[in-house]
Amino acid sequence: MTAKHLSDAELAAGRELMARLDAFAAFTDEPGRLTRLFLSDAHKRAARAFIGWCAEAGLDARIDAAGNVVARYEGRQAGAPALMLGSHIDTVRDAGRYDGNYGALAALAVVEGLAGHGERLDHAVEIVAFGDEEGVRFRSTLTGSRALAGTYEQDALDQKDSGGVLMRDALKAFGGDPDAAGSIRANNVAAFVEAHIEQGPLLEAEGLPLGVVSAINGATRLEVGVDGAAGHAGATPMALRRDALTAAAEMALAIEARARREADLVATVGRLEVWPGATNVIPGHVQFSVDLRAPDDARRAAALADLKASIHSIAVARGVRATVAKTHEANAFVCDPRIVAGLTRAVVEVGVRPRILPSGAGHDTMVMGGHCPAGMLFVRCKGGVSHNPLESITPEDCAYGLAALSRFVRDFRVS
Amino acid sequence: MTAKHLSDAELAAGRELMARLDAFAAFTDEPGRLTRLFLSDAHKRAARAFIGWCAEAGLDARIDAAGNVVARYEGRQAGAPALMLGSHIDTVRDAGRYDGNYGALAALAVVEGLAGHGERLDHAVEIVAFGDEEGVRFRSTLTGSRALAGTYEQDALDQKDSGGVLMRDALKAFGGDPDAAGSIRANNVAAFVEAHIEQGPLLEAEGLPLGVVSAINGATRLEVGVDGAAGHAGATPMALRRDALTAAAEMALAIEARARREADLVATVGRLEVWPGATNVIPGHVQFSVDLRAPDDARRAAALADLKASIHSIAVARGVRATVAKTHEANAFVCDPRIVAGLTRAVVEVGVRPRILPSGAGHDTMVMGGHCPAGMLFVRCKGGVSHNPLESITPEDCAYGLAALSRFVRDFRVS
Repeated sequence: MTAKHLSDAELAAGRELMARLDAFAAFTDEPGRLTRLFLSDAHKRAARAFIGWCAEAGLDARIDAAGNVVARYEGRQAGAPALMLGSHIDTVRDAGRYDGNYGALAALAVVEGLAGHGERLDHAVEIVAFGDEEGVRFRSTLTGSRALAGTYEQDALDQKDSGGVLMRDALKAFGGDPDAAGSIRANNVAAFVEAHIEQGPLLEAEGLPLGVVSAINGATRLEVGVDGAAGHAGATPMALRRDALTAAAEMALAIEARARREADLVATVGRLEVWPGATNVIPGHVQFSVDLRAPDDARRAAALADLKASIHSIAVARGVRATVAKTHEANAFVCDPRIVAGLTRAVVEVGVRPRILPSGAGHDTMVMGGHCPAGMLFVRCKGGVSHNPLESITPEDCAYGLAALSRFVRDFRVS
Repeated sequence: MTAKHLSDAELAAGRELMARLDAFAAFTDEPGRLTRLFLSDAHKRAARAFIGWCAEAGLDARIDAAGNVVARYEGRQAGAPALMLGSHIDTVRDAGRYDGNYGALAALAVVEGLAGHGERLDHAVEIVAFGDEEGVRFRSTLTGSRALAGTYEQDALDQKDSGGVLMRDALKAFGGDPDAAGSIRANNVAAFVEAHIEQGPLLEAEGLPLGVVSAINGATRLEVGVDGAAGHAGATPMALRRDALTAAAEMALAIEARARREADLVATVGRLEVWPGATNVIPGHVQFSVDLRAPDDARRAAALADLKASIHSIAVARGVRATVAKTHEANAFVCDPRIVAGLTRAVVEVGVRPRILPSGAGHDTMVMGGHCPAGMLFVRCKGGVSHNPLESITPEDCAYGLAALSRFVRDFRVS
């Protein structure tokens, strides 16, 4: 797909956004690679730059009590309900430059596009650059969006980073207000929309620059233990073995096969450890993780029951013992249907065949969705790679995302 | 099977051997568990006790140049060809008390049985207690039997243990002679026979106290690397994955299935590691070991070719890349047919249904077999457990092994 449906102005705006993403990547805690942890020095410098760019566009941006950068572009009438746009500007260690940052800077670019022509809409547009999405520094995550959604967890302030610094103190030094973080809330917000790179390979595989998110997958994580019998690899005939690893291998393949049967459902054995783990010893114990995700909680529950049944029947057939423990569970967040419809229309308007897909990763959107209608726009990224310096998008796709988001914002109506 | 075929004297001799095995386990380098490394203080104390027991039976035992304890019980005519019996008295760390020690002390018990009645045979009986079978302390193994077989490797003397002690110096302190170790050799030995616990579960599964070894399995070890593509466990649809772990799982099951097709052939994936090994990341790389053993080299070669073909066809089907490297290869040692026949006859004479089976583990016998006709007698052990304090044999089985070995020795004829 070429960018033939975009105007020269839209393509130029995309190139500017790419340049700004490149410049923004300079705000890092580690020289030579992008690492921008929540409330770090690099985060503060990035927030100041963001506030400066807002100011250039005539917006009075500020750091809120929870460490978010927030700004408001008024509509035709001051005090009108707002459409809030944004994403996060913290990163993982050795990050790519698009995860989070794309959506935060695209939100700013949308408002710059309006402000550049003095264009006012029936609704206000608010911008937010969240700060605690990756959850790398503290044992907390999504505290920025939780504050705006009114679900802030005070305990988070008592978390310490690896250097012993309390989040409470770091937030104060950053310019936030730990005492007030739990009592702010996004007021008079009609909807929240987040643009984000896909972090998966689906759009690339289908040749599409954009996708509209239907739901953020619910997830179940399991820890599976398999107890067989260790034994001498030379002296134990095959028929007398209770090999924990081949049992686990059969389980991993059953898990894979079950997930393959159903679209949009994924299951992964990402970690697997073998005891004693010696070349000449039959494995006596294996421990592995299962990560199961689906955009629909009922389908996830059905798949989970199937996985457990497979694990246990394989264990019985092989004379090993399997234990299955649930270590995590999060329900799916279903995006607001009107937001999905609006984003789909915007995608079609920029000439892209609409593709609605679930998000496998979690996002601030699922928190904001507890407070107001919310949805997401995905931009294709190269090879599905994310959380890695090889993260990559094209200038054309950058422009497509910005153009579709801009159209969505202009077409948005407060219901 | 009860011990009804054994005489009271044979049962009593078995009980005495059990008691001596218990007493011998006191010679350890680590309090509270049995660890007797080659040339250690515990090894020296054990060797002295062994020499003392030999002296009580009227044998002039000594430590030879390579650190073996050797003794000779003359036949009717001094200088007659000898039948050599023995096994090793070094152990792994936290060992059981039967691996090796059973065969060394059973050899002594056989001679005690002869000497007790002043019984002389047409042939001499030599006893050996090898010292370097487990290969735990130095990067060497089987140097004791190599010396007697005339295949000593001088380089072994330059190996250092983890404390920096040279084997050369340790051997000298032990009472050996590093300068002469390479030039000794068992002279005028007609055959070598080693009694040993099975270290596998086959005899137990078949309800038999004894087995005769047909061959010591040849072994091939492989290191297999699987390169897939790491990816987000939530954001990558099943159809777009190149999961290195599920590919490796399919390979492990193919390896298991191939080994199951053929009696006496075993294949084990004992070590398997996953990268990056995180719950929410599709594995991009897996590394695993394969241990393949068979009593026949041609069958092992055929199985190896099948395993490689399976690994590569699974890799192609899944779009991953597999590399297979051979890290170890040892040919099978086929026991001398006349020794096998003689041991089989002795087993039948003590009332046990004969069972001929391969040895999955390596033993000094395979080295001695390069010098003279050689073979092995296996004694059932509990659960196939070895290299572990839970190693266990019954007093009855202990007696069966000693009785069969004694009969073999009495019936042996130099050809």
